[in-house]
Formats: sequence, C-alpha cells, structure tokens
Amino acid sequence: MFKAIVSAETLRTALDSVSVLVDECKIHLNEDGFAIRAVDPANVGMVDLTLDASAFESYEADGGVIGVNLSRLENIAGMASSGQLVQLELDEETRKLHIQIEGLEYTLALIDPDSIRQEPDIPNLDLPAQIVIEGRDIDRAVKAADMVSDHIALGVEEADELFYVSAEGDTDDVRLELPREDLIDLSAGQARSLFSLDYLKDMNKAIPKDGEVTIDLGEEFPVKLHFELAEGQGSVTYMLAPRIQSD
Amino acid sequence: MFKAIVSAETLRTALDSVSVLVDECKIHLNEDGFAIRAVDPANVGMVDLTLDASAFESYEADGGVIGVNLSRLENIAGMASSGQLVQLELDEETRKLHIQIEGLEYTLALIDPDSIRQEPDIPNLDLPAQIVIEGRDIDRAVKAADMVSDHIALGVEEADELFYVSAEGDTDDVRLELPREDLIDLSAGQARSLFSLDYLKDMNKAIPKDGEVTIDLGEEFPVKLHFELAEGQGSVTYMLAPRIQSD
Amino acid sequence: MFKAIVSAETLRTALDSVSVLVDECKIHLNEDGFAIRAVDPANVGMVDLTLDASAFESYEADGGVIGVNLSRLENIAGMASSGQLVQLELDEETRKLHIQIEGLEYTLALIDPDSIRQEPDIPNLDLPAQIVIEGRDIDRAVKAADMVSDHIALGVEEADELFYVSAEGDTDDVRLELPREDLIDLSAGQARSLFSLDYLKDMNKAIPKDGEVTIDLGEEFPVKLHFELAEGQGSVTYMLAPRIQSD
Repeated sequence: MFKAIVSAETLRTALDSVSVLVDECKIHLNEDGFAIRAVDPANVGMVDLTLDASAFESYEADGGVIGVNLSRLENIAGMASSGQLVQLELDEETRKLHIQIEGLEYTLALIDPDSIRQEPDIPNLDLPAQIVIEGRDIDRAVKAADMVSDHIALGVEEADELFYVSAEGDTDDVRLELPREDLIDLSAGQARSLFSLDYLKDMNKAIPKDGEVTIDLGEEFPVKLHFELAEGQGSVTYMLAPRIQSD
Repeated sequence: MFKAIVSAETLRTALDSVSVLVDECKIHLNEDGFAIRAVDPANVGMVDLTLDASAFESYEADGGVIGVNLSRLENIAGMASSGQLVQLELDEETRKLHIQIEGLEYTLALIDPDSIRQEPDIPNLDLPAQIVIEGRDIDRAVKAADMVSDHIALGVEEADELFYVSAEGDTDDVRLELPREDLIDLSAGQARSLFSLDYLKDMNKAIPKDGEVTIDLGEEFPVKLHFELAEGQGSVTYMLAPRIQSD
Repeated sequence: MFKAIVSAETLRTALDSVSVLVDECKIHLNEDGFAIRAVDPANVGMVDLTLDASAFESYEADGGVIGVNLSRLENIAGMASSGQLVQLELDEETRKLHIQIEGLEYTLALIDPDSIRQEPDIPNLDLPAQIVIEGRDIDRAVKAADMVSDHIALGVEEADELFYVSAEGDTDDVRLELPREDLIDLSAGQARSLFSLDYLKDMNKAIPKDGEVTIDLGEEFPVKLHFELAEGQGSVTYMLAPRIQSD
C-alpha cells in the first residue's frame, strides 16, 4: 500500500539527486518515508536518499518496494508548476503508479525491482577531515577544474587550516583555497584524494547552491558529500571512489 | 492596390497562426481586411485566418491576392520590436511588397499565387459538442499526451458533463479531465475523436495561452478550434481531420 | 614585470573585442596600459585595442609582450561575477600568467609571441565621410542585411545628408536610411563601399549597443569603426577591407 501527496518541487529535487547517477532505481516505501540507494554502472558513485514522511503533505506506506524509470517520473513531476501538489498512488494489482496533478492523471508502468541493479552497501568510513561548505563554492571549484582537466583533487592542509581543490591540465593549472574563515566549519586532518570530474559535475547539479554541504575526506579514500533537502526533511549522501594518482 | 500599417505584434501573431501549417500561402487583400486559408500538404490540418481592417492602424486594399513565403515575412516582422509599426505597400508592377519599419525598408519578392497549393473549402460541420476552454489547458493537455504517445483523443462524457483528453502509450497512459466548472463553457454531447499529436502541437504553438478557445467536437469527426486575435479584430479557425482508431 | 588588478567586466569586454577576429594574440604590457593589435588570418579585418592603466584598479608593467590564447583567458575571466576583481601577475621565469579571483588561482601557460601571426600596421587613411551612430543602429542594420545577403554596402548620400546601409539578395533587398537627425553626428562626403557581412557580424558582437560608434567611410575603401570601452579608459578601432563590387 502506498498513497502520498507531495509538492512538485520536493519530489523533483529528491528524484534529481538520484537521476544524476542512474536511470532506474528501487524506491523503498517505508512507513516513515521513502528511501533510495543506488550505485552507478561503473561502481564509482553511490547515492543514499531519504525523504521523511513529514516532507509530504500526506503519506501512507507499508514497506513495499517499487522499481521506476527516473526520467519518466521526472518528466511527469515536471508537468506540475512549483506550487502544485502531486498525488501518488500504487495499484498493487496492475503494478502501476497513478500520478495525479490537478485533473491530470498519469499511469506509470513500474519496473520489476529484481531487474534493477542491486543496491550498494554504503560503507561506514572513518575519515580524518570534515569540511562544511556552501554549495556555491563546490559549484565554483567544479567549474574551474573543468576548464583544465577531467580530474580534480580535494584536500586539506592541516597546519594552515585550509581546504583546497586543485586540477592540473596539460598546460594550465587551477587551485581554489578556502581557509577556515571562508568555510562554514572545518575539522582539519591530513587528507587528499583525486576524483573523476565527470561524477563530481553530475553530483554538483543536484547540490543546492544556497545550502550547506558536509564533505568527509581522507588520504586516497572515497569522499562523502552530505546535504539536506526539503527544509531538512530529506537528506542525500553521495559517495565517490577515488582515482589512483598517476604521475 | 494595398497599403497598410499594423503593429509588429499583431502581424506576427496573425502570420504565426498560419505558418505552423504551411510555408507559403495566398493572402487575400480584401477591402474589409486580410484573409488567409490554407491546408497542409497532407490534407490533415486547415487554417482560416481573418484580420479585420480595424486591427490595422491604417488599411487600404481593393481585393487583390498575393503569394508570400511566410518564414521570410515573419523574419522581417521579427526585426521590429513589439511597440513598432510595420508599413506594408504592394508594388503592383514589380510584384514586390515594400515593408518599412522605422527607416528600414525591406523589398520582398512575392510568389505567383497560382504556384501555391489550392485553398481548401472548410466544411460547415454540425458537431454535437462544444467546449470553451482556456488556451493554457490545451497546452497542458498536449504536453502531457506528448510524454506517452503520438496520438491524442479528445472527448466529452455527456452524463458527467466533462471534457477529457487522453493518450495511451506502450506502457504509460495519460488522462486529463476537466469538468464543467473548470471550463469556460460546455455544451455536452456524445463526442470522441482521435488526432495526430504533431498537428495539435503545431496548432498549440499559435494558441494564446491566456485566451479562450472554442472546440467543436464529434464522434470520429474533424475537430474545430477557434480563437480570436488582436483583441477580437482577428480570428483563427483550425480544422484537424481525425485518425482512425486502430486497436 | 606585470602585475595588475582589473574588474572582470572590463577585462572580458576588452578581450571580446579582439577574440571576434583572432584566437591568439600578443598583448603589449606597456607602462601606460595594455595594447593589442591583430589581423585575422585572411587579412580582411584588423583590430587595435588599448586599455589605459587607469581602467585597472592597479597596474604595473615595464613594456614586455606576452602571447595568449584568447578563449582560455576569456573562460577564466568568465569564472568571475561582474563585480569581482581579477588579479593578473606574470611569472617571467616560467612564462606563465597567474590569475586570481577571490581564492581561485589559475595558472595560464603563455604562447611564444614569435609563434603568433605578425601584428598589422593599421594605415592612416583620410576618408571623406564620418558617421557617429548608436551601437544599436549598427546591430539593426547588420541583422536586417543578414536576412537577404552575405554582403552589405555602407554609404553616405552627400546631398541628402544621410547614411545608408543596403544589402541585395537573390530575391529580396534591404535598405536602412538614417538621416542626419537620427545620427549622433555626420560629416557628409561621397562614400560607398561593400563589405563581407560575416566580418561585420563578428565586430558587431563586440560593439556596445548603448554606446556610440564613429564610422570613417570612403569610396571602395576600408571602413574604420571606432568606439570606447571601460568608460572611456579603453578604445577599440576595427578596420575592414572592402569587397570588390561584382555586377
């Protein structure tokens, strides 16, 4: 059983954070909200999304799992204007999701959850450095790195208490340094890892520019990026595997 | 003889309603205004446009016919900003149209009207249902149908007094229901016909979102869509042939 | 030695005026400001740009010359928002330009100036007519001509004291006439020359729409277009060779 009403904006924001990594996913319709975990086909980027029941206008579910094509669900949600409400109702028999937006009814065929790539276990890493940063600064770093390279290094200089982002191209280099006073918070620790810029560009699309993002970083370790959605009633954690530094 | 001055906006709106169906057309320069009738090359969609002399700042004509390339005439009208006036004058001898927009003079070569596809006779149908609807609701229906199919059904449920639009795709379906209270007016009658979405998408481009549209609908019959232009001093009627329902 | 701070907007405007013609150029880092002269590969269009030291927040230079890839330098300047400052510093040893924008440091590899196309001598022509015109009128003329042809004639009718722009296509013609009262100033003299529209379209991109442009025009002679940048603290002169009229 699943029946819920949610603002189009909240639904879109939640789905976007997953669709930057995968095309299809399982949605867990838990009693206390809905949850998605997914990993991209190359096993490099993972996402863990939860949207609490309180983020919905109304929410009833009893723990089922459905499989959805994300771009189709996003297109439907895109039919609503920001203020409009989207009503979702699962038809258990036909395995279809009925979606209503002010007189418009869309019947979405679901996907067999068993045919969807298995959900990842997101490891509990103990990473030495934590940076709390504005979303717009991540955007700036990613765009600057993109001008010179397809890799990006994130690091912390413990002694100087600063977070840096750097990228080295064939001819040009880019470096962005943010000292403690330009960050929301910093727990300095020795940390530096290299990442594929493509993935970070995709994740950056879903990061709210005016929100805060918590980055957990280590020495040649995966990075975790965490931020909230729907005024704190939803949360997204991305994990991105590092690239091996080649010199 | 033809000499007229018209606001760029009025001219553009009038031409756009025809150019969504055909590239070239005949313009009848009648004494009381100008008129265009045209049918698309596949004989599926027709348009009947009139623009009264009162929609012009000044208008003098004596009943001639000219042939024009619509996209070129639209590009010229597009050079003017919304508030500007466009002055049109026919040179009978050279068969060219002189178009002036504040110091800019464009000389447009006309097309021999005999080389243009013959104008259609728009049949006088007696259709059982009439729906008066806001342009933006047609837009919404067309966009929703476009997500799942390339056909769209328009219909009226006589007993429930509602107008509906539905589209069935390979996996997903869409249905928009508008009861009498969400319409401007409804004369309910048994009616349902299936149409090619491509044509309706083209016609929708020319339908003013904030204007009202009168739809005449029957049972597997052509649909008529009628709306006004230029604050009521112009009018457009589209007619679209139905597709045969294949099951 | 070169070290300067300049608003992102001023830097971008100056670079744009050169990059419409060439991809790479030499920048002369003179004591009193920086200067660029360049000619396009076909020797048809030339640009002469100066940006006075007073256009910068701070400026120190001793007469060196650097070679730069313009699109890369423009992309970097594009990372700054309009109000932000860009700090430029030449590292003489590594031949790299360090560019800083609020915590972001970009290291740009320079190009050997000797590998860049030689700078043109811009001839001192004594042209019989001078037109001072608003940038937006050039924009209008170029867009109108582009609808019918890939050539554009600029001319002055001495007796009528008017400046005209005309273009003749295979079927349609365009003519824009601006009498003295619609110009900022006019020194009438016999003048008419034909130009390639592609070049004038490129130059038009860099011409400020709300600024004034001085046009020096002759009889089958090159045209000079002159305008100011950075509130008068910079200046651009374009010179464009005429096309031979073929009839």
